[in-house]
Amino acid sequence: MNTFYSDNIDGHTIKLSPKESHHCINVKRSKKGDLVTVLDGKGTRYIASIVDVNKEAVLLTIKEKNISPNPIAGLHLVISPTKSHDRIDWMVEKATEIGVKKISFVSCKRTERKKINFERIKKITVSAIKQCGQYYLPELSNIINYEDLLLSILEEQRYIAHLEPESKVHLSKIYNKSKNICVFIGPEGDFTDQEISFAKDNNFISVTLGDNTLRTETAGVFVASLINILNV
Amino acid sequence: MNTFYSDNIDGHTIKLSPKESHHCINVKRSKKGDLVTVLDGKGTRYIASIVDVNKEAVLLTIKEKNISPNPIAGLHLVISPTKSHDRIDWMVEKATEIGVKKISFVSCKRTERKKINFERIKKITVSAIKQCGQYYLPELSNIINYEDLLLSILEEQRYIAHLEPESKVHLSKIYNKSKNICVFIGPEGDFTDQEISFAKDNNFISVTLGDNTLRTETAGVFVASLINILNV
Repeated sequence: MNTFYSDNIDGHTIKLSPKESHHCINVKRSKKGDLVTVLDGKGTRYIASIVDVNKEAVLLTIKEKNISPNPIAGLHLVISPTKSHDRIDWMVEKATEIGVKKISFVSCKRTERKKINFERIKKITVSAIKQCGQYYLPELSNIINYEDLLLSILEEQRYIAHLEPESKVHLSKIYNKSKNICVFIGPEGDFTDQEISFAKDNNFISVTLGDNTLRTETAGVFVASLINILNV
Repeated sequence: MNTFYSDNIDGHTIKLSPKESHHCINVKRSKKGDLVTVLDGKGTRYIASIVDVNKEAVLLTIKEKNISPNPIAGLHLVISPTKSHDRIDWMVEKATEIGVKKISFVSCKRTERKKINFERIKKITVSAIKQCGQYYLPELSNIINYEDLLLSILEEQRYIAHLEPESKVHLSKIYNKSKNICVFIGPEGDFTDQEISFAKDNNFISVTLGDNTLRTETAGVFVASLINILNV
């Protein structure tokens, strides 16, 4: 069954955006009367029947509704954009497939990319949940300065993954399943000493992700996997 | 310190290949007398001094030698190539960074790509270990037919991750750290029923990777992460 995304659901009716309507009619060749899956990205999956195939707004009637439990583990991933936008795109797609509550982009001293294509990244998350049947669309936050972002963090567990040679516990050993978690991942070249000190001064705990120096985008996907696996 | 790869190490002398020599001299601008890191991809990391900067074969003298313990968990990942070669490349790069003993490519009934650029994939693994300081280069095996490959598997733990709705345990719950492991990951569209039956008839156990339908390449990176994390 084809899967679409909509954030416009009212009572028994679902309306697809122009982009999703195009995808539905022109790409998937869906017709009036077809049954399709619609995700709202907020934990509900609908089985719905197409009642109108207007190009600008496909309309559907809800036939069935499945609600998923809360998103795994409530991971808030805070990550420095990479120089290559392909690597950001890849990280966002994979983290979304595996499951993450929120992805925030952070501008650190050594972050080489100061702007991201936020609209494209949003589209990638929508495609990824449609692809994998994930019930939750991650919340996204555009680039914010390191200190401001760090001071705004509300999660109870706060970790910073860095490469400085100090005694650090592996994230898998310290993570507590019952509490929301935020993990900061730095740019190529790592956080500066000042940034690490600032995090510690604000109740962040230093963690390691293992002996290998993972690339930024690999670290993001690895952390999403870790939280997912420890919640099985 | 710059890092290079060599499989030509004899006594106290290391010789770089023409490609690595080019990388050393022209890209990294290393000079006679410079100290660099050399990985042999088989568990040893050398600190070595450049003694000759011939373009075809940089020669080095070993100053220091570090041997790493065995590669994590001995994961043999058997995976169907994806239609897009970019996605294969990503998977290989990320699985290598995270750590995997061997990657074999398998041709299933629904595998859309019947050929891969094996030489490029080899190069990606070399770049990845240089990038992340991983001591072990994964062994690679070019595309082999599903049945033949499955019958050749020697690992003690044998799993097939598929999406058929049957009772399946999560890989993280059944994995035994003390034994070598092989995991089969299928193409987009999954293994056929016949392929799954064939695996079961040959002592493979069906596993799930969770509720989300991961893309083939995401499943590969997820399994590498899972084995790594459960070995911390």
